[in-house]
Amino acid sequence: MMLILVTAKDRLAVRRERHQSGIWEMSDFDGTVVRRRRSGEAGGTAARVNDTGLQSQYQPYKDAAWGFVNHWYPALFSEELPEDAVEGVQICGVPIVLRRAEGKVFALKDQCVHRGIRLSAKPTCFTKDSITCWYHGFTFDLADGKLSTIVANPSDPLIGTTGLTAYPVEEVAGMIFVFVRDDDFPIEDVPPLAEDLPFRFPESSERFPHPLWPASPSLLDEGAVVKGMHRTGYADWRIACENGFDNAHILVHKDNAIVHALDWTLPLGILPTAEDCIEVVEDEGGPKGLMQWLFTDKWEPVLENERLGLKVEGLKSRTYRTSVVLPGVLMVENWPEEHVVQYEWYVPITSDTHEYWEILVRICPTEEERKAFDYRYRTFYKPLALNGFNDCDVYAREAMHDFYADGTGWDDEQLVSTDVSPITWRKVASRWNRGIAKPGRGVEGAIPTTSIRMRRAAEGVPPGYKVEKIED
Amino acid sequence: MMLILVTAKDRLAVRRERHQSGIWEMSDFDGTVVRRRRSGEAGGTAARVNDTGLQSQYQPYKDAAWGFVNHWYPALFSEELPEDAVEGVQICGVPIVLRRAEGKVFALKDQCVHRGIRLSAKPTCFTKDSITCWYHGFTFDLADGKLSTIVANPSDPLIGTTGLTAYPVEEVAGMIFVFVRDDDFPIEDVPPLAEDLPFRFPESSERFPHPLWPASPSLLDEGAVVKGMHRTGYADWRIACENGFDNAHILVHKDNAIVHALDWTLPLGILPTAEDCIEVVEDEGGPKGLMQWLFTDKWEPVLENERLGLKVEGLKSRTYRTSVVLPGVLMVENWPEEHVVQYEWYVPITSDTHEYWEILVRICPTEEERKAFDYRYRTFYKPLALNGFNDCDVYAREAMHDFYADGTGWDDEQLVSTDVSPITWRKVASRWNRGIAKPGRGVEGAIPTTSIRMRRAAEGVPPGYKVEKIED
Amino acid sequence: MMLILVTAKDRLAVRRERHQSGIWEMSDFDGTVVRRRRSGEAGGTAARVNDTGLQSQYQPYKDAAWGFVNHWYPALFSEELPEDAVEGVQICGVPIVLRRAEGKVFALKDQCVHRGIRLSAKPTCFTKDSITCWYHGFTFDLADGKLSTIVANPSDPLIGTTGLTAYPVEEVAGMIFVFVRDDDFPIEDVPPLAEDLPFRFPESSERFPHPLWPASPSLLDEGAVVKGMHRTGYADWRIACENGFDNAHILVHKDNAIVHALDWTLPLGILPTAEDCIEVVEDEGGPKGLMQWLFTDKWEPVLENERLGLKVEGLKSRTYRTSVVLPGVLMVENWPEEHVVQYEWYVPITSDTHEYWEILVRICPTEEERKAFDYRYRTFYKPLALNGFNDCDVYAREAMHDFYADGTGWDDEQLVSTDVSPITWRKVASRWNRGIAKPGRGVEGAIPTTSIRMRRAAEGVPPGYKVEKIED
Repeated sequence: MMLILVTAKDRLAVRRERHQSGIWEMSDFDGTVVRRRRSGEAGGTAARVNDTGLQSQYQPYKDAAWGFVNHWYPALFSEELPEDAVEGVQICGVPIVLRRAEGKVFALKDQCVHRGIRLSAKPTCFTKDSITCWYHGFTFDLADGKLSTIVANPSDPLIGTTGLTAYPVEEVAGMIFVFVRDDDFPIEDVPPLAEDLPFRFPESSERFPHPLWPASPSLLDEGAVVKGMHRTGYADWRIACENGFDNAHILVHKDNAIVHALDWTLPLGILPTAEDCIEVVEDEGGPKGLMQWLFTDKWEPVLENERLGLKVEGLKSRTYRTSVVLPGVLMVENWPEEHVVQYEWYVPITSDTHEYWEILVRICPTEEERKAFDYRYRTFYKPLALNGFNDCDVYAREAMHDFYADGTGWDDEQLVSTDVSPITWRKVASRWNRGIAKPGRGVEGAIPTTSIRMRRAAEGVPPGYKVEKIED
Repeated sequence: MMLILVTAKDRLAVRRERHQSGIWEMSDFDGTVVRRRRSGEAGGTAARVNDTGLQSQYQPYKDAAWGFVNHWYPALFSEELPEDAVEGVQICGVPIVLRRAEGKVFALKDQCVHRGIRLSAKPTCFTKDSITCWYHGFTFDLADGKLSTIVANPSDPLIGTTGLTAYPVEEVAGMIFVFVRDDDFPIEDVPPLAEDLPFRFPESSERFPHPLWPASPSLLDEGAVVKGMHRTGYADWRIACENGFDNAHILVHKDNAIVHALDWTLPLGILPTAEDCIEVVEDEGGPKGLMQWLFTDKWEPVLENERLGLKVEGLKSRTYRTSVVLPGVLMVENWPEEHVVQYEWYVPITSDTHEYWEILVRICPTEEERKAFDYRYRTFYKPLALNGFNDCDVYAREAMHDFYADGTGWDDEQLVSTDVSPITWRKVASRWNRGIAKPGRGVEGAIPTTSIRMRRAAEGVPPGYKVEKIED
Repeated sequence: MMLILVTAKDRLAVRRERHQSGIWEMSDFDGTVVRRRRSGEAGGTAARVNDTGLQSQYQPYKDAAWGFVNHWYPALFSEELPEDAVEGVQICGVPIVLRRAEGKVFALKDQCVHRGIRLSAKPTCFTKDSITCWYHGFTFDLADGKLSTIVANPSDPLIGTTGLTAYPVEEVAGMIFVFVRDDDFPIEDVPPLAEDLPFRFPESSERFPHPLWPASPSLLDEGAVVKGMHRTGYADWRIACENGFDNAHILVHKDNAIVHALDWTLPLGILPTAEDCIEVVEDEGGPKGLMQWLFTDKWEPVLENERLGLKVEGLKSRTYRTSVVLPGVLMVENWPEEHVVQYEWYVPITSDTHEYWEILVRICPTEEERKAFDYRYRTFYKPLALNGFNDCDVYAREAMHDFYADGTGWDDEQLVSTDVSPITWRKVASRWNRGIAKPGRGVEGAIPTTSIRMRRAAEGVPPGYKVEKIED
């Protein structure tokens, strides 16, 4: 999602603010730098920015069709997993079973060590601290995944010598996060969830001033309430992610109801005007990603296109700002309203499906405020923003997929100056990801067409994120 | 489609005609020639005609699973593209967007240079002389495909340095033809449409006498009216094409309503009786293909099959003649009635789908004649010929596809003397095609199974020819 | 399917029986043998039984994704092929057309030598002793598959020099069996059907005593009546087959209606307690496979699992015994009732689909007994056993497929002592199969995704076993 507007008044306000605050210097911008960045030769044009040299800087990203592992991902909303419930999902090609027992959520690899069955397909649990494979009774401790018994074979020597990979779980503000790790990634090296979540405010207010809106809340704040949804997107997760903070696709949203209902007037686009229009964040022990200096003079709105006879007057919209951090978490501050922030994830399922998460966070200390937020969510945010507005982004991502599906799009795409955002993201993601997911092994989607996938399609069931339960 | 009949009287007529006209000599046919052609060893049988040596003569044809490029193909009927309309199709793996502006039709590669989106998925045009990508506003001149601006980035250096391949367009008799070229095929080398259309009459009447029917009209004649339809066929385009002029599959049509409604009595088949039963046409500057000497003594009807106790008496049907030219255009003269001609195309979409075109042409100088032709089309030609009769051909082609889909059919097929038609076609097509299409790159079908294809199937939408429009 | 129970009384009975009969010695069992078999290193665990050395012993089985050829398989029930009917099926990737003429059933390769069409798609027969391809009239003798004429080309030299592979057919007790052979497997080497059917009783009663139930009938017995069904399973045939005689998956059936309707109390499982708990049968000229010594002291029921706090008291169920022979035929003696036996086949269609056959056999000398058996079948066996109970097995097999579909499951699976059954089967099947089927060539499924498969899925038709007929 992306929408931008700066009014002259705003910009003055920003400059004044910055001058008064003295937080930073006016950028000493040398256009030639940008020009230099445009001197590639790839694709038969001298003007595309993503020349071969640049591409090599984000090769790891190009290799991550199945996503980045050893990161925290949202798996389910808490309400999707009540006490004793069992659900199966797939993230980065890794099948994962979640169970809530005594209130606590546990996550194990959802692939029995015996014959590879997904435990979640037919939940079977004899104790609060274990989950049993419904086929041959292999039973695993929820805490560490160890094979602790076999129903029909209590003394088999395999018991205690093997097990399922266990995934650390954090549950916060009604969301269940799982640290999807390689089987051999040491538990003791698992970073805190906060390292894979967006920048926090007011902690970051000094570094990233927001003179035009109040500090955005965080999922981790006390009293944070989350409203949102997730659905399967039929495209490469990277395509989806890049769309989230892309400043150049305003056009897609021009007909959206939210724009017209609120009587906004959008610019044609915005252009980077400074070398440091985007700030890369690579602090030790913190989220790795980028913050865009939107609504500052490092980005200028485009109000006219003479070739097309387009001219925008009386810009009118809300201010906001986008940033993205590994493993692909978007934050849109001050959106869709003040005191509300939107997060998005594009959780890789296979190399060409992802689970698209859209949530809104607001601090609601009282029950009354919760109710009001919930009502606002159901009547405005969900229909006009998470659907309506973002539905256009979903269409755009899926429309892009064929171009990238056979791998040729990464070479054939011709990027331009406004693509500084995705390019910067690709580079930071290449440097800081904790591992490139191997192609799924023995899982749904490892082979694009199995007879079961064809049968399901014939039954009207497309590939998805959650395991289909077996009815007896 | 194929249907044949010769009565003794007809043949006498033909002979007399030929004798009188003196246009040609009775063929001095030496059966041994044909026997020689049957001496291959391939496939473990000494009698199949397509031995390895012969196969090597049409290797280029075997390589053309994605079709032949640098040829003229029908893209749409004029009525499918009214003023300002935008449609996307795929031909030979090349995505093509068509737009009509100020009455003129333009065709560009339907794959934005930026991120590969199909422009046609959500038509966006700000001027009469351009088309804009709905995602990031990349705008291309309709005339030459040049990137002339970017909505949100009017001064980007990429502008003017790149663009989309533009395809020459000819619109005639209610049909829009596109010259599907390789990106580097010189515009100045584009041949006239007539070179990729069937032989014309009466221009060819002397060379290809038609004593049994009036000269067939041409799509290019003044007053030519076209009625027809196109639909997606789920088979290799070559399989479909070869079926069109194949003289040996009368059996498929034996139960068709048109046959019984008109009380025809079909022969069991027809056999080539002369070495020159088919004339290959390779004239400089003209269509390249073949004409079959049907209804002459170079082909004899088979009236009896003793092994099966089949005997045909009182042959009764209409006379006609089939020919085919590159890139795969069938003409059936004198069909389904006098003064009407049927053309067919088997336009490659992917390596295993094609758009099947069936049209009928008649010269209708007056509005009254137009109306009559249209009425006849709706009440007789379409239900009984283009559907009914040709539906059987569609089934046959799709039934053949599995055999050829993995490439083994080309080696395993065992052809016989009546297959002189497809074999001659394969050889002439191998010699005269203007280019073998590369497998689709970054397009629908480049990868047989994407998650989107599976989702569409689940929604009841099979792979097709036209782009699905995105609804806001 | 698998269900087991031994009561103390039963076991005493067995021992007494064995002592009195003196048929065999009490097994002098040395547990260490089993422990030794458990010392592999594969899969990173010292306790899994299928180490690399063991796996190499059944490599041929691992290579048999498309099944074993040169074996007898059920093709259709007699009632599916009335006089003059024609049906097409696919077994081990081989397309087969069946026709009944003058009461006799014939089977030929269902792939015309000419262009590979399946003759069965549009049955065309002009004589009782032939079948004709509906496309170009190629006609084959039913008896030997020889190309005996071409409708439209009665004197073509190909006639008599080529043909379709003919498959020996046996029809017994309402079932049609076809010997699916390689094209070059000599007819004279075709073994009798009995070699590919389960062990017979009472012939085998001495070798395999059954003190707890009467001798099981055989399909080949006089008066044998067969009731049953077949359906397509969306999984590798081996996965399906191994489930049939697997003693360790009782859990899957715990909620089945048949169990509760008959008020059975099942054990948690059964464990092999003797090295010779399974007897491998490799007699010259007889079925090759294995018999399991169920309901003897070579298998002990598991009544308790302390870790899970499970304890079974008052076991109550019926006794029975499973065996399996090549090419994958299960026999369940004394099931679902006395005097009835269940057979199952898992006929490979492609590498990831199989036709699942479930039949029940009973000797019914009189019409009255036939009627009673039929009534019992419709009201009890079919709903509660063949569906109900076995449906759970179908779900389990399909749930296992993703793990094996990409080939990795065979290496990743961690088998245990109770897997002695499938492991023994894999080894005997590797030694005695008559040929490993080559991947299908030019047939449905040779390429997992053709556009036709996608179109069919969109139309709600999944891949299947029988040919879809073409409607005119």
